[in-house]
Amino acid sequence: MAQHSLERLNVILIGSGNVATNIGIALQDAEAEITQVYSQDVANAKILARTLAKKSKASKPKVLTNLSKIDKRPSLIIIAVKDSAIEGIVKQLNVNDGIVVHTSGNVSLDVLKKFNQYGVLYPLQTFSKGRITDFSNVPMCIEGSDVSTLQSLMTVAESLSDCVYNLNSKQRAGAHLAAVFANNFTNHIYAVAEKLLNEQKLPFDLIRPLIDETAVKVMDISPAAAQTGPAIRKDNNVMKSHLVNLKKHPELKKMYALFSAEILKTAKKKIK
Amino acid sequence: MAQHSLERLNVILIGSGNVATNIGIALQDAEAEITQVYSQDVANAKILARTLAKKSKASKPKVLTNLSKIDKRPSLIIIAVKDSAIEGIVKQLNVNDGIVVHTSGNVSLDVLKKFNQYGVLYPLQTFSKGRITDFSNVPMCIEGSDVSTLQSLMTVAESLSDCVYNLNSKQRAGAHLAAVFANNFTNHIYAVAEKLLNEQKLPFDLIRPLIDETAVKVMDISPAAAQTGPAIRKDNNVMKSHLVNLKKHPELKKMYALFSAEILKTAKKKIK
Repeated sequence: MAQHSLERLNVILIGSGNVATNIGIALQDAEAEITQVYSQDVANAKILARTLAKKSKASKPKVLTNLSKIDKRPSLIIIAVKDSAIEGIVKQLNVNDGIVVHTSGNVSLDVLKKFNQYGVLYPLQTFSKGRITDFSNVPMCIEGSDVSTLQSLMTVAESLSDCVYNLNSKQRAGAHLAAVFANNFTNHIYAVAEKLLNEQKLPFDLIRPLIDETAVKVMDISPAAAQTGPAIRKDNNVMKSHLVNLKKHPELKKMYALFSAEILKTAKKKIK
Repeated sequence: MAQHSLERLNVILIGSGNVATNIGIALQDAEAEITQVYSQDVANAKILARTLAKKSKASKPKVLTNLSKIDKRPSLIIIAVKDSAIEGIVKQLNVNDGIVVHTSGNVSLDVLKKFNQYGVLYPLQTFSKGRITDFSNVPMCIEGSDVSTLQSLMTVAESLSDCVYNLNSKQRAGAHLAAVFANNFTNHIYAVAEKLLNEQKLPFDLIRPLIDETAVKVMDISPAAAQTGPAIRKDNNVMKSHLVNLKKHPELKKMYALFSAEILKTAKKKIK
């Protein structure tokens, strides 16, 4: 569990979505003080300020309605908005003190270069507002404009999480891409499985234990070592009958063929 | 937890792989007696017999070297071999008593029709010999040649697991296909993510918490509701930059484009 305290850290949160909400709660838990909250959607900013006030003994963060009214002496300004909105926020934001960071996996550090000290705090996890995330095992990917900034961000990240990684922008983009596969595409596969079950009037419950076990397996071993199924066994009869069963779904046939070919290629490499 | 006892159930196991090993252990835990074990690979049959003997107070199962020497009065004969080997086993197997079942997700019930009583016990889970599976939450998909056989198999399945489903052969094939997506293809996606991370000299540990959370989310909610990411947000800039990052991997670009298009299609359906 992360152990350091962020007492005396004065944080301004820009954004009111899943990341802003979860990182705000985690920072407060580490005893940082969220002094101001800004969102293009004022109603959402108010909800976030109330949520943070409820979870803390500290005073309620002020809701900013205009970025020109920002506290000029913050320790840390966190821009946790969608990627396409970061540049617009940067344009409106005029501060000389403190460190300005964004939380994006895919946006370069350079977008923040007009500030004196800047960096990235990218929590590599999927967040929901309704589900408070325990940050202690969320990988925090950090980047800083200079050594002193990086050290400060390291302190912040280590106060939140036991897994802190110092990544440059290119590595972060690679990690984000891997995350899109491991999260978005995996979840879509679950949705495909649900659709195939529903066609047979079967509940999704039938494969929930399998989904759980598939994920649990790779907590210890490499997925390359965990691969099973007809493709890696080169069981052509089973694969053929699966493709017949998918005849109503040309896009799923394409997906099936692509995956099977790729899994088979991996198997061949192993044999060599 | 499954509660019934299978005392007095006399079981012959044909096969010595991951399914045979795990179902054998689970049956013994439910107090069934495994009397004989057969495998085309005698050495493997011996290992399984020893494993079962170690885990039980009952006497060590006999290793059969020839299927003609099978006990003619078993209660249950379980054929747990790879799909393509089932027919060959059926040809060699001459018994009049007891119930003969296979454990395949993809093979029709009819392959067993030469026997008097026959059925299917398909445990919908991924198994390894080195990892003993708790059967109590393994979905057991059963099918029987007649009502009385189905009832007997229901008793066996309910002794092993709390989740028993009565599926016909077509439904079982649908469930197996869904399982290939949810397990084999999902695991391959994990392997792709590992490859992308390794290219950036990053450890797989970086996305293990994300993989865990992605699977945990759909334990309660539908994957259709859990979908996030650039595709469902229609964030074209992020998707374009991801495709640029994949330029060295034409097959992964294809996979990325296919998934993004499918996720987007789902999003459009939601809006309608």
